[in-house]
Amino acid sequence: MDPQVSIIMGSTSDLPVMKKAAEFLNTMEVPFEMIALSAHRTPDEVADFARNAEGRGVKAIIAGAGMAAALPGVIAAITALPVIGVPLGATLMGQDALLSIAQMPPGIPVATTGIDGAMNGAVLAVRILALSDTALKARYDAWRSSLGQKIVKANESLADVKYDFKTN
Amino acid sequence: MDPQVSIIMGSTSDLPVMKKAAEFLNTMEVPFEMIALSAHRTPDEVADFARNAEGRGVKAIIAGAGMAAALPGVIAAITALPVIGVPLGATLMGQDALLSIAQMPPGIPVATTGIDGAMNGAVLAVRILALSDTALKARYDAWRSSLGQKIVKANESLADVKYDFKTN
Amino acid sequence: MDPQVSIIMGSTSDLPVMKKAAEFLNTMEVPFEMIALSAHRTPDEVADFARNAEGRGVKAIIAGAGMAAALPGVIAAITALPVIGVPLGATLMGQDALLSIAQMPPGIPVATTGIDGAMNGAVLAVRILALSDTALKARYDAWRSSLGQKIVKANESLADVKYDFKTN
Amino acid sequence: MDPQVSIIMGSTSDLPVMKKAAEFLNTMEVPFEMIALSAHRTPDEVADFARNAEGRGVKAIIAGAGMAAALPGVIAAITALPVIGVPLGATLMGQDALLSIAQMPPGIPVATTGIDGAMNGAVLAVRILALSDTALKARYDAWRSSLGQKIVKANESLADVKYDFKTN
Amino acid sequence: MDPQVSIIMGSTSDLPVMKKAAEFLNTMEVPFEMIALSAHRTPDEVADFARNAEGRGVKAIIAGAGMAAALPGVIAAITALPVIGVPLGATLMGQDALLSIAQMPPGIPVATTGIDGAMNGAVLAVRILALSDTALKARYDAWRSSLGQKIVKANESLADVKYDFKTN
Amino acid sequence: MDPQVSIIMGSTSDLPVMKKAAEFLNTMEVPFEMIALSAHRTPDEVADFARNAEGRGVKAIIAGAGMAAALPGVIAAITALPVIGVPLGATLMGQDALLSIAQMPPGIPVATTGIDGAMNGAVLAVRILALSDTALKARYDAWRSSLGQKIVKANESLADVKYDFKTN
Amino acid sequence: MDPQVSIIMGSTSDLPVMKKAAEFLNTMEVPFEMIALSAHRTPDEVADFARNAEGRGVKAIIAGAGMAAALPGVIAAITALPVIGVPLGATLMGQDALLSIAQMPPGIPVATTGIDGAMNGAVLAVRILALSDTALKARYDAWRSSLGQKIVKANESLADVKYDFKTN
Amino acid sequence: MDPQVSIIMGSTSDLPVMKKAAEFLNTMEVPFEMIALSAHRTPDEVADFARNAEGRGVKAIIAGAGMAAALPGVIAAITALPVIGVPLGATLMGQDALLSIAQMPPGIPVATTGIDGAMNGAVLAVRILALSDTALKARYDAWRSSLGQKIVKANESLADVKYDFKTN
Repeated sequence: MDPQVSIIMGSTSDLPVMKKAAEFLNTMEVPFEMIALSAHRTPDEVADFARNAEGRGVKAIIAGAGMAAALPGVIAAITALPVIGVPLGATLMGQDALLSIAQMPPGIPVATTGIDGAMNGAVLAVRILALSDTALKARYDAWRSSLGQKIVKANESLADVKYDFKTN
Repeated sequence: MDPQVSIIMGSTSDLPVMKKAAEFLNTMEVPFEMIALSAHRTPDEVADFARNAEGRGVKAIIAGAGMAAALPGVIAAITALPVIGVPLGATLMGQDALLSIAQMPPGIPVATTGIDGAMNGAVLAVRILALSDTALKARYDAWRSSLGQKIVKANESLADVKYDFKTN
Repeated sequence: MDPQVSIIMGSTSDLPVMKKAAEFLNTMEVPFEMIALSAHRTPDEVADFARNAEGRGVKAIIAGAGMAAALPGVIAAITALPVIGVPLGATLMGQDALLSIAQMPPGIPVATTGIDGAMNGAVLAVRILALSDTALKARYDAWRSSLGQKIVKANESLADVKYDFKTN
Repeated sequence: MDPQVSIIMGSTSDLPVMKKAAEFLNTMEVPFEMIALSAHRTPDEVADFARNAEGRGVKAIIAGAGMAAALPGVIAAITALPVIGVPLGATLMGQDALLSIAQMPPGIPVATTGIDGAMNGAVLAVRILALSDTALKARYDAWRSSLGQKIVKANESLADVKYDFKTN
Repeated sequence: MDPQVSIIMGSTSDLPVMKKAAEFLNTMEVPFEMIALSAHRTPDEVADFARNAEGRGVKAIIAGAGMAAALPGVIAAITALPVIGVPLGATLMGQDALLSIAQMPPGIPVATTGIDGAMNGAVLAVRILALSDTALKARYDAWRSSLGQKIVKANESLADVKYDFKTN
Repeated sequence: MDPQVSIIMGSTSDLPVMKKAAEFLNTMEVPFEMIALSAHRTPDEVADFARNAEGRGVKAIIAGAGMAAALPGVIAAITALPVIGVPLGATLMGQDALLSIAQMPPGIPVATTGIDGAMNGAVLAVRILALSDTALKARYDAWRSSLGQKIVKANESLADVKYDFKTN
Repeated sequence: MDPQVSIIMGSTSDLPVMKKAAEFLNTMEVPFEMIALSAHRTPDEVADFARNAEGRGVKAIIAGAGMAAALPGVIAAITALPVIGVPLGATLMGQDALLSIAQMPPGIPVATTGIDGAMNGAVLAVRILALSDTALKARYDAWRSSLGQKIVKANESLADVKYDFKTN
Repeated sequence: MDPQVSIIMGSTSDLPVMKKAAEFLNTMEVPFEMIALSAHRTPDEVADFARNAEGRGVKAIIAGAGMAAALPGVIAAITALPVIGVPLGATLMGQDALLSIAQMPPGIPVATTGIDGAMNGAVLAVRILALSDTALKARYDAWRSSLGQKIVKANESLADVKYDFKTN
C-alpha cells in the first residue's frame, strides 16, 4: 500500500522520538514511510523527496529536526503538501529547534508541534487525512473517545490518596 | 457559501494580525468565517463552537491567541478537525503564547505557526483543503509559483548597490 | 467531611509533586479531595467540576499542570472560587508551564505559585481559608512560628564550619 | 470604612499599572488603601505594615514590584494574610520580576499574577473576600456574567469582515 | 572585476543592515556582489547560487537572515566555501535567527556573527581573504590600527566630565 | 585631587547611563575619573590602565559594557582592585551583557550590578571606600537615611487615590 | 578573632556551594563566620544580623540564595556594608536567582557573582579588604600570581595531543 | 611541520569537546597545535600568543570558552587572523558562552560556531585554508561527498521500521 504519510528524520538517533509518530499511524492503520534525510548533509535528496512526494501519493509530511532545524522548512519550501515539523530536544532543551521550525517567513508554513511531539505530529496528520477518509475518521473518533480513560484510571488510583485526611 | 475555515480570535484588537489570514483565504477564494471567542471569557461558546464546527462543514480552524494562549488547545480538545494556532505577540514578544500553544500534551495537537503568523495559518489551511480540492490546488500552485517574483524584484533594486564598488 | 480544597492534576505522574499539597493540608487538618482532570483530554469533566465545586462547598482549587498548562485557567474561567495554579516542571524546566499559567488575560486570575510549588499552593489555600476559620488560623500560626526552627538547626550544624579559620 | 485590601507599590511610577487594581476594587465596592513601600528603601516600614495589616482588618494584600521584586515575598514572610504579587514590566519585559515574585521557597507563598496583572490581582482578592461576603459574591457574579459581552460586541464588528469573501 | 564576496539577503528590507557589509568591503576595495535569495521562497535559485559560487571565483559568502534563518546553513550545505551567517533582529530581538544560524549539525559550519552584525561579517571575510592577498592585508592592517582613534576622541569628550567633581 | 574611582566605558554613547555613576560620586564627594577604553578596540590601553590603576591610587573600578561585555572581566584579570561591572542594555535588553559580565570563572570576580545599574555601581564603590574613610561613611549614611523620603512623598500623592472608594 | 566576613546562606543544603567561599577565606587567612538566615523564614533574624554586622566589625557580607533570592538585597537594604550576592543554581539553572539578586533598584546595590560563584564572592571580599590590609594584599597577590600555574600544567598535558598530527 | 591552526582552550577540562577539532584537522592532514590559555587567568600569555600567531605561520585560530567566554574576542582584538569561537556548554547549557562569543562589537568579528561545535570550528578552518591549498581542497571535497553516507546507512536501518504497518 502506498504511503500516505512520510516521516522524515535526520538520523537514526532521532528514532526513539520519531517512532511515536509511526506507532500512532500504525494504530490508525495509515500507511506511512520512514526516511532519513538531512537538509545540511543531503540537500539534493531532500529536494528530490520534496519534489516527488505529492506525485507518489503522499498527503502529509512529518519532519523531525533538532538544533538549527532547517529540514521541515526546506521541505515546505518545495512541496505544496502540509508539512508538520517536530522540534527535537537534542540541545538547549529543544528551544533552538522550536524557534528554527516555527518562525517561518510569510508564505511557507510549517505546522509545528511541541518539543519531541512526534506523536502529536501523527495525530495532526490523521486529522488532516480524515477530512476526506471517513473510515479513518471513524477509527480516529473511536480512539479520541478513549482519551479520557487514562484519566478515569488515574482517579481510581487517587481515591486512596484523596481520603487520607488524618482527622477524617 | 458555507465557510470552510473558521478564523477565531479573542478580541477585535487581534484583528490587525488575524485579518492577514482572511486576506489570504480571500485571495485563494476559500469561504471563511471570523468569530471572536475567548477560552477564558466565553468558555461555553468556545465549547459550542468546537462541538459544532465539523457538522457545519468547517474543515480547518485557525485560532489566534496571546499570553496564556489556551484557545487553540481548548478547541483542539473538543473538535476532531485540524486546529492551527497562531501565537500573538501581545506580551513578552509572543514567547508566552508560542509555548502556551505549541507545548500540547500527547494526543491533542495544535499546528502552531510562528509568532503573529496568521497568514501562514491560512496558507497551511489551504494546503490541507487542497488535498481534496483540485481547483483550489491549482489556484494555490499558481500563487506559489509567484512567490519568487518578490526576490526577482529585490535583485533588480540591489543591482545599483552591488556595482558601487568604488575602485571598480 | 466535605472537602474544602480540591487538588487537581492531569495524571498520576504529577502525584510526586502534587502530593506535597495534600500533605500540608493534612498537617493543617483541612479536608481535601484529589482529582485527575485534563483540560485537553477530559474537557467536559473539567467544565462539570468547575461548575459544581462551589456548590459542593469547595473554597479553593489547587491545579497543577505542565507544558501548555491550560488546566488552571480553564477552571478559573468557569468557577468564581480562587484558583491556585502550580506550574509543573515536566518540560523546559517548567518555564512553559509558568508562562501558560501566570499570563492570564484581565478578568480571569490564576494565583500562580513557583515551579513545582505544590506545597506553597496548599499554604496559600490555608491562608485563604484561615481568613474565616479561627481554629485553622491558630494551627497555621503555630506552624508558621516553627518555620525558623530549620534555620536554628542549620546554624548549629554550621558552627563547626564557621570557626575552622586555620590561623584562629 | 476600614480597608479590606492593601494595594502596595514601590513608587508612584507604578501607579499607572497598579491603579487598575484600585479601579476594580472600586467597581466591586471593596474598601482598600494604597500605600507606597519599598523592600529595599524602607524595610522597617514594610515590616511594620506586614506585622500590623491583619490587626487592622486587612484581608488580602496586593503588592506590585519590578526588577528584583522582593516586596511581595518580604511581606508574605511576615504576615499570615494571602499576599498577591504583581510583577511589573519595568525591565526585561517583566521576566525578572515574574521570577523574583513567583519562585518563593516552600512555606511562604505569593499568589503571582501575570506581568502587569494588577487588575487580576484585584479580581483574585475579590474571589477570596467573596468566600465569606455574600453581598460581594453577588456583585462579583454579576460582573463575571458580563465578561462575555465584550466578545458579543467583537463578533458584531467582525460580521462585516467575515462575509467579505470576494467571489461569494 | 569579479566579485570575491557574495552578500546574500532574503529581501530588500534587510538592506539597511546588510549594506554595512557592502560598505566595509568597499572601504577595503574588495569586489563583491549583492544578491537577494530566499531559502524558503527561491530554493532552486539558492541551490544554483551555492553550487556555482566557487566556480565564479567567489571566496566567501555573507548571508543575512531573520527568524527561522535557514539561508546560511542551506548555502553551507552545498558550497565548500566559508559561509558567514548574520542573524537579523526582525523578531524576538534576533534570538531566533541567532540559534537558527549558529546551531548547525557537525560537518556543516556557519561562521555566525552577532545579531545584525553585517559589518563584522565583512571584516571576517576580509580576514579570510587577506590570508592570501598581501595588498588587502596591508589595507586591513591600516584600518585596524585606526580602530583605537574613536576611543581617543571619546576620551577627549569625556575630559570635561571627568573633572567636574564639585569639591575639586 | 587624585581619583579614587575610575569609571570606564567603551564609547561616549554609553555616557547617558554611565554618568549616573559620576553624579553619585560627585554627590558623595569622591574624586573620580572617566575614561573610554575598549577590550576589543584598544586592548593594550586596557592592559596599561589595569596594570597602573592601583599604583595611581585608584581604589575601585566601575566598568560599563554592552553585548559581549568583556571589558570588566579583562580589567579584573589584570588588576587586584575590586572591579564593578555594569551590563549595558544595548542589545537583547542587556541579557547578553549581564551574562558576559557575571559569569566569570573561579578566581577572577567581577562585582556585577543590574542592567544599566551605573548608579548602583557608584553606591557599591562608596560602600567599599567608606570601610576605611569615616568622613565618606558619614556622608553616605546621611544619604542612605534619606532614601525613604521618596516613599514618604509617594504616599502623600497616593492619599488622594486611596480614599476614592466610591461608596465610602 | 572577630570575623571580617559573614557568609550567609538559607539552608545547609547550600553548604556544598557556599563552603568554597569559606575555603578561600581560610586560604587567605581572613576570619569569617558562617550563618544560616532566610529572608522569608527568619526575616527578623535577617534584620538583626544586617543591623549589627557593621558594629561587630564585619567588613563584607557574602550571601548565597536561590530561586526568588531576596536575601542579599534585603541585607543590603539595612546594612551600609558591601553585600556580595551569590545566585545559587537550585532551579531554572540559577537564572531566577541571578535576576533576583542582580536587578536591584537604584540606591541599594548587591555585588552579584556568577551562578554558584561562591569562591568568587570570597575573592571579591578579599580584594575589598586588601584595600586597607597590606598583609592580606601580599597574600592575595601571591595567590593571584599562581593562577596561571594551572594553565602551565594544562599545556604540559596538551603537549601529547598537540603533536599527534598523523602525517607529521 | 609548522601548525596552520591553533586550537585554544581554557583548561584541560575542555579537552573532551575541543579534541573533536583536533581529530578533524588530523583527518584533513592539517598541522595544528593545542594550547591552554585563559583570558582571565593568563592575560599576558593570551596577548603574546595573539600577537605572534600570524608571524609563526598560523592561518586560523579556534578558541573554545565557556561562561563569560572572553577568550575568542580578546584574541580577535589583537590578531588579524580569522578567529573561530566555540561556545562551551559548561553552564546555562552554553547560552552564556554563545552570547559572550557571538555578540562582538563592530570591527572585531569572531566566527561563532554552535554550542560545543568544536568539530565545526575545524571544518570552518579547513574551508578557509582550502581557499589557497588545492591539495587540502581535494581532501575536504572527498570528505564532504561522503557526508551523505551516514544518511544512506540510516535509511537502510529504517527500512525495517517503515514497512511494519500492521494491516498492510
